[in-house]
Amino acid sequence: MCDKERLEIGEFEMIERLFLSHAVVDEGVEVPNGDDASVHRLPVGASLVVSSDSALSGVHWPQDMALTPAADRAVQAALSDLAAMGATARWCWVALMAQDGVALEAMGQGVLHSVASSGAVLAGGDCVRSSCNGLTVTVAGTLDSGSAMRRDAAVAGDTIWLLGRVGAAVAGLRCWLAGARDGEWVDAFCGVRALLNDGAELRRYGVRCCIDISDGLVQDAGHIARASGVALQLDLDGLPDLEQLTTEFDDGLQLAMYGGEDYALLCTAPDGLSELLQSLGAVNIGVVITGSGVVVRWRGQDISIKEHGFDHFATV
Amino acid sequence: MCDKERLEIGEFEMIERLFLSHAVVDEGVEVPNGDDASVHRLPVGASLVVSSDSALSGVHWPQDMALTPAADRAVQAALSDLAAMGATARWCWVALMAQDGVALEAMGQGVLHSVASSGAVLAGGDCVRSSCNGLTVTVAGTLDSGSAMRRDAAVAGDTIWLLGRVGAAVAGLRCWLAGARDGEWVDAFCGVRALLNDGAELRRYGVRCCIDISDGLVQDAGHIARASGVALQLDLDGLPDLEQLTTEFDDGLQLAMYGGEDYALLCTAPDGLSELLQSLGAVNIGVVITGSGVVVRWRGQDISIKEHGFDHFATV
Repeated sequence: MCDKERLEIGEFEMIERLFLSHAVVDEGVEVPNGDDASVHRLPVGASLVVSSDSALSGVHWPQDMALTPAADRAVQAALSDLAAMGATARWCWVALMAQDGVALEAMGQGVLHSVASSGAVLAGGDCVRSSCNGLTVTVAGTLDSGSAMRRDAAVAGDTIWLLGRVGAAVAGLRCWLAGARDGEWVDAFCGVRALLNDGAELRRYGVRCCIDISDGLVQDAGHIARASGVALQLDLDGLPDLEQLTTEFDDGLQLAMYGGEDYALLCTAPDGLSELLQSLGAVNIGVVITGSGVVVRWRGQDISIKEHGFDHFATV
Repeated sequence: MCDKERLEIGEFEMIERLFLSHAVVDEGVEVPNGDDASVHRLPVGASLVVSSDSALSGVHWPQDMALTPAADRAVQAALSDLAAMGATARWCWVALMAQDGVALEAMGQGVLHSVASSGAVLAGGDCVRSSCNGLTVTVAGTLDSGSAMRRDAAVAGDTIWLLGRVGAAVAGLRCWLAGARDGEWVDAFCGVRALLNDGAELRRYGVRCCIDISDGLVQDAGHIARASGVALQLDLDGLPDLEQLTTEFDDGLQLAMYGGEDYALLCTAPDGLSELLQSLGAVNIGVVITGSGVVVRWRGQDISIKEHGFDHFATV
């Protein structure tokens, strides 16, 4: 199909072709995609977990990144919030904002791929014309009522664990902006996956406190510290990628401490869970202590920290 | 607080001030706004109803409309999908896309007002910097499992009923674009309210087929006809506002037939429900017959219809 034809496809036909024709109905869907709203049943004893995130071209991904992988990435970023709570991904609703029909279709394909790979069902959405390309992804999952991992449940004496990478995505973004289109770091940025299975396992192991690292390790550790009324003492020596980051980048330590967008999971747990956490591939990177804020140590030294990670409106 | 100060408020502080400080927790909220995701319990025997819609400045509202009423309106438009299913509004997640902190705050105030007026709870959201102002509103409601009103449940012999107005909002938009800033039609566009109570009553009365008129009467009637495998014969003589629209606008009939954005409810029901529907203020505007498509009559004459209402991508 040539571009000319694609541009002449109307909104309803595009929605039909992109979304309705791919609608998968799971046992919880009572009214599927295609009505005014979708209707869902929850399993007995389950609670609903919901998050909604926007991602825009030129803000959340480089403007010269193809829209299909960009939309795939945006869906994974939203799903990461479910991973952080320990939920099983069930349903997604995606609002596509597109400059034209070509952009709409490109983002739609990325959404379809990403949702399918997560085991969730595309339950609805919206397509609107916009002067900037982007999408808002709303994700819903389920978990046993009362078992959600929260950021306010860290306790002094817990150890701190990391699942996944930190600094790799922002290193990849920097390489991209310098002209690279492949390589380990670029792949880490473009190919981010929500750690849904890991999050669900953590919750089943009995972990009660978790956050996904979207804003940067120090900032997200600070969210746990503030919500839980404790201090987090991070020891960066165990951090994956840090040796390589500091070798390849002058500010590699900064990338690891403040670089967001990797969607790793940061959790705290009592000592008794250490063996289970190690079996999952989690790395111990510190301990929860009484007090407030975040303390960082590396190579035996205290590292001073700056207050903020990425903040969309701080530099307005 | 002066604008300069507002512009210097960071994303987290803005989220805190706009959203978290206004967080209301209802009995179904297990983890409120402020964590990676919100967690909710549903009443026993209830199903979840979800819809997600975007609204952008310059597309869904005039660029010179103030952002607070525009965001209020966008929330009502999203809630209207819950009204069409007959659901009780419970939770909203709002992703704000703003050019700067002033726009963010203005839209945030509109969201807070609109959500509060609907009886729902703001359960989460996102704030991102964007080159265009807009928001994606995800709404969730509950209803008794199996009782949702759907667009595929019209049966030949049903009568067709309208609750609310058609054509008034698009008339108001036209007046706005011609320079008017008040008056009946402008108020109808700016002050649209989702008919949540009416939708819930229709469902309780036993109505099984309903849609909200977002795209225009004829187009949305077509959605019911197509989904249900029937034809809808509309008789416009009973239509509220039509006399006034045809008096004040040369194309008043077109405004009533194709003007969207009023968020009226269009439903079909068996004869036995007529008295109840009238008691609710619904107006009988036709009958469901065998066949396909939509037939329109006015003043004893068949009116030819064009195929489409508003389509964001048709004129790309």
